[in-house]
Amino acid sequence: MTVLDRFFRKDKAALSRIISFIENREDGYLKLLSKLYPKTGNAYKIGMTGPPGAGKSTLVDKMAVRYFGQGKSVGIIAVDPTSPFTGGALLGDRIRMQNLSDKGDVFIRSMATRGSAGGLAAATREVALALDAFGCDIIIIETVGVGQVELDVAGLCDTTIVVLVPESGDGIQTLKAGLMEIADIFVVNKVDRDGSGRLVSELRMMVEGRRKNRDGNWDYPVLRTEAINDIGVDKLIENIKSHRKFILGESSENYIYNRVKSELKLIVKQRIIDNILPELLTEDAVDYYAKRILSNGADPYSITEELIAKMIVEDVKT
Amino acid sequence: MTVLDRFFRKDKAALSRIISFIENREDGYLKLLSKLYPKTGNAYKIGMTGPPGAGKSTLVDKMAVRYFGQGKSVGIIAVDPTSPFTGGALLGDRIRMQNLSDKGDVFIRSMATRGSAGGLAAATREVALALDAFGCDIIIIETVGVGQVELDVAGLCDTTIVVLVPESGDGIQTLKAGLMEIADIFVVNKVDRDGSGRLVSELRMMVEGRRKNRDGNWDYPVLRTEAINDIGVDKLIENIKSHRKFILGESSENYIYNRVKSELKLIVKQRIIDNILPELLTEDAVDYYAKRILSNGADPYSITEELIAKMIVEDVKT
Repeated sequence: MTVLDRFFRKDKAALSRIISFIENREDGYLKLLSKLYPKTGNAYKIGMTGPPGAGKSTLVDKMAVRYFGQGKSVGIIAVDPTSPFTGGALLGDRIRMQNLSDKGDVFIRSMATRGSAGGLAAATREVALALDAFGCDIIIIETVGVGQVELDVAGLCDTTIVVLVPESGDGIQTLKAGLMEIADIFVVNKVDRDGSGRLVSELRMMVEGRRKNRDGNWDYPVLRTEAINDIGVDKLIENIKSHRKFILGESSENYIYNRVKSELKLIVKQRIIDNILPELLTEDAVDYYAKRILSNGADPYSITEELIAKMIVEDVKT
Repeated sequence: MTVLDRFFRKDKAALSRIISFIENREDGYLKLLSKLYPKTGNAYKIGMTGPPGAGKSTLVDKMAVRYFGQGKSVGIIAVDPTSPFTGGALLGDRIRMQNLSDKGDVFIRSMATRGSAGGLAAATREVALALDAFGCDIIIIETVGVGQVELDVAGLCDTTIVVLVPESGDGIQTLKAGLMEIADIFVVNKVDRDGSGRLVSELRMMVEGRRKNRDGNWDYPVLRTEAINDIGVDKLIENIKSHRKFILGESSENYIYNRVKSELKLIVKQRIIDNILPELLTEDAVDYYAKRILSNGADPYSITEELIAKMIVEDVKT
């Protein structure tokens, strides 16, 4: 029996191997993704982001238990663009998975840095695809910090939750950081701490302004949790459900259509960066042009125009 | 007299207009960059990054005054990937510039979000090019937060300084955030505050480990400053000078050669994303393929392969 057969029989060891295969971009991984793709579409993807120390992992674990209670299986991808560790499950994942797997059907995977933000987002999308094809009902993608990766990950999730804590001190700073734009639901975690009331009020005021500028009737709820004591989690799960209903709207076709379009664009872009760019600009070519720039006053912008002119795109629509 | 003539006569209003022209990617901006490029190569580029509230701007202003004392002109680019403001100088810049311009030859420009991390880094590189061509001796690029933009900006700087503060609390978290890798010099600012001793020690220990893993003899100094009271700034300036000497090494040719190569790669990549990608994948084409995916079970990975196959790269080396 091949690894893929075992994967489709819900063997988690096979899932692990498939994910590593994809993460490492081993020969044939694109063909593999093509095979997995038709099995996808079942999973609901939830993004969870916020500053380090906001208690995201604790909250995710409590959420997972709620989904277990609904008979759902949960995949968790912990994306840390700042971690130098790559490949395979980390010790922390294994401990976390042991704690959770007594309670329900769960799979946890950490993803770490891979050179470029675009690369990490692409890999995250592919790992989510594998979890979806594997049959996970809910996929929760945790991301640490604030940056391009978070924005990209939010783009691939159905519902994005931004978790803040009073003592992060930079409530407004963090919001400035593009998080305001990506949040469907705000959570103020650790509400037992000083300053939580003020943070909740600040968020509600900002959300008020946002509501007026947006179409639709989504309320951008600001919720209060104390994840470590399991407080406020039910309410969060309810709000995720409401958001799901909201985005799917009267018919889910339009939502899915737009999602497929944006996925396609991202996949094509990543492939061009990974493959066409190195073909256009080999190391030899770079050497050649660098010498021209340094010796005879050529400039990199004119050279880029020369290069671009050599690329031909055939009419792609047939 | 054209704007470009006035620019070359060191008219700061013309510099402002040239920068806006580039930032807005107005027609002909690539030709303009080609014209500016041959005038560049004089400026020394210093990156300054760290968490919000670390006191980066205060430190930069104190550094600028030191450079004025050496008879140098200073350009400051404040990159805030989290700010929704775009284009033109912000009020904060103008106040800052007023305070500094009594003391020396300075130009300050803020850069804000522009859709993608790659786009902001590219725009920052181009604005730095304009400041270099204008004749700035020192260009200091401040970036806020931690993310891909910081890494990209570090890539275009000669010396990168990471500024931390004791109360950021996430000393180690921040370092994890890829900052360890990009720092040539660490600064612990606000050393009068609690916890600064511990942060300095932690950094020195981490740096110790790093030194052993690296070639060369650079020491990755960990400096202590109190920017607001102008303490420790001279020492920082000295260390920047030492780093400059270090990277240029016995001959600066190799350093410049590698720099030109990496610049060229980035410029070509950005142009492909900006121009080739939309040509390959028009909105009509996206619609067409999305329908295929949804109706007849095509998958985006196979479609990407089809598209890539339609791109032809002529042999570029002549």
